[in-house]
Amino acid sequence: MLVDIQYCGICHSDIHQVRGEWGHSNYPMVPGHEIVGTATVVGDKVRKFKVGNKVGVGTFIDSCCRCGPCRAGEEQYCEEGATFTYNSYERDGKTLTLGGYSTYITVDEAYAFNIPQSLSPECAAPLLCAGTTTYSPLRHFGVKRDSQIAVVGLGGLGHMAVKLATAMGAKVTVMSHSPDKREDAMRLGAEEFIATGDPEALKKNASRFDFVMDTVSARHDFNAYLDLLRLDGTMMLVGLPDPAPLAPSALEGHRRRLTGSNVGGTRETQEMLDFCAKHDIAADVEVIPFQRIEEAFDRTVRSDVRYRFVIDIESLKEY
Amino acid sequence: MLVDIQYCGICHSDIHQVRGEWGHSNYPMVPGHEIVGTATVVGDKVRKFKVGNKVGVGTFIDSCCRCGPCRAGEEQYCEEGATFTYNSYERDGKTLTLGGYSTYITVDEAYAFNIPQSLSPECAAPLLCAGTTTYSPLRHFGVKRDSQIAVVGLGGLGHMAVKLATAMGAKVTVMSHSPDKREDAMRLGAEEFIATGDPEALKKNASRFDFVMDTVSARHDFNAYLDLLRLDGTMMLVGLPDPAPLAPSALEGHRRRLTGSNVGGTRETQEMLDFCAKHDIAADVEVIPFQRIEEAFDRTVRSDVRYRFVIDIESLKEY
Repeated sequence: MLVDIQYCGICHSDIHQVRGEWGHSNYPMVPGHEIVGTATVVGDKVRKFKVGNKVGVGTFIDSCCRCGPCRAGEEQYCEEGATFTYNSYERDGKTLTLGGYSTYITVDEAYAFNIPQSLSPECAAPLLCAGTTTYSPLRHFGVKRDSQIAVVGLGGLGHMAVKLATAMGAKVTVMSHSPDKREDAMRLGAEEFIATGDPEALKKNASRFDFVMDTVSARHDFNAYLDLLRLDGTMMLVGLPDPAPLAPSALEGHRRRLTGSNVGGTRETQEMLDFCAKHDIAADVEVIPFQRIEEAFDRTVRSDVRYRFVIDIESLKEY
Repeated sequence: MLVDIQYCGICHSDIHQVRGEWGHSNYPMVPGHEIVGTATVVGDKVRKFKVGNKVGVGTFIDSCCRCGPCRAGEEQYCEEGATFTYNSYERDGKTLTLGGYSTYITVDEAYAFNIPQSLSPECAAPLLCAGTTTYSPLRHFGVKRDSQIAVVGLGGLGHMAVKLATAMGAKVTVMSHSPDKREDAMRLGAEEFIATGDPEALKKNASRFDFVMDTVSARHDFNAYLDLLRLDGTMMLVGLPDPAPLAPSALEGHRRRLTGSNVGGTRETQEMLDFCAKHDIAADVEVIPFQRIEEAFDRTVRSDVRYRFVIDIESLKEY
């Protein structure tokens, strides 16, 4: 299926890979894995989509299709490794994949999603990564009505975690280093905001939460956030910060769990899109033309965006 | 209830506390929380025990009795803090508790256990700490028939983990730095032994296990052992090593869980004792007289014991 791309979100991981910061960058690189567009050419065997349908493409576009995780729609954990949307190789091991900072992408329908009509395409684009990355662990680890959850960090991932957990009926507390995000946190659905710059703030909230979703990508102290959990609570890491010391006592004294997950599979990603349509939520975005990507990269690195840049691909077509 | 103590195990935590290594030692200290003896004087309201019964006392001897964990028989997680058997204060906050390196102990029946007749008292003593500390997480996190579990470290805790997991029907692999423990590992029930001194040994077993029980008390690399887990696998920490770096990628790539737990509650401790009687297992011990405690401490510190020293309290009575 050929997709005429309308919008593509800018994920922090795009910047890491473009700049070679993860050590496995393949150039020439076309980044972008938060893609929304229109089905333009549809093959004979395609069943889920018709020409003109609004289509999403996320972080991977192929997998082995045979292993347990693939058969469960959790292709992100494919035992042979999923094929990422860009900076990865097709199953032939030779053809470099090229992502969504582009006018078109060709994709197997199994790895494309139906974007509900009620979602605006530019606000839906970040759901394909930031949305599914937070939705998947919220569901998998059992966040539900009246769960007490602390969302640590209010960026691209954090703002989606707040909206999604709130829509699931959870009681959300936002923890951020920036006191100026308080108002936004409440607007997004949080019941409470805690500025973590105050060293006493975390201690005062010890053993209070059922869940902590840690979205911070800078290196930080895991133990201080583990201490927020009550007995049998679960802390979910979704950022990829550098390693930091883990104190066994922070787990053992309250039988806490520290876990992490990696985006979402095809099953949960479609479920998340339908959930967002039902609850009328999507990403808060700042739409930019292609010509402002460098500026957007720099602002993303300094967290100066509320909460996701999305490229209007029309600007690339005019180029 | 007054208990005439017959045997008391030597737990590594006794040594830490006697030597003031944990920074909260109260002297004079009578250590010991792996206690087996005979009920000698029984109060009018005692229902579970009669004079002459074989009785066990473990790591705690009181708790608030009102909070959720206490009501669930998980007093080790008492919200007000359990009262430990020694180096702790009674609920009055003033009276120091005194442990099992002693001829007698007075204990509330709610915190005493029935030692099945088929278990020898000296081999049962270490079950009150080492046994319940490993049994509780094995049960809580769902180790069962045909679970693939790696037990890391073969000491007081590790050897009980091997026996208990084997009796639960799990397939046990022992991982130890000491190649000379291979024979013992197999005798205790393991199906396989991996010497971790070989740097390739862990890599070769990546993503293989459902569970890892990490019993090591020296500081070590958690990430290398997390990598042994398959998708959704759980690593349980039961030692108390110093903090070491945790790499989020070791969790996120396979949605692994790192957790830890703290001894076992009264419910699980009695269940564990009955389970041990049913499966005819107990600790491997070296019985020593009171006069050899210093030597036993030194040998415990250098892991030169297979697998638990137990003090014959008769030797103290003769003193």
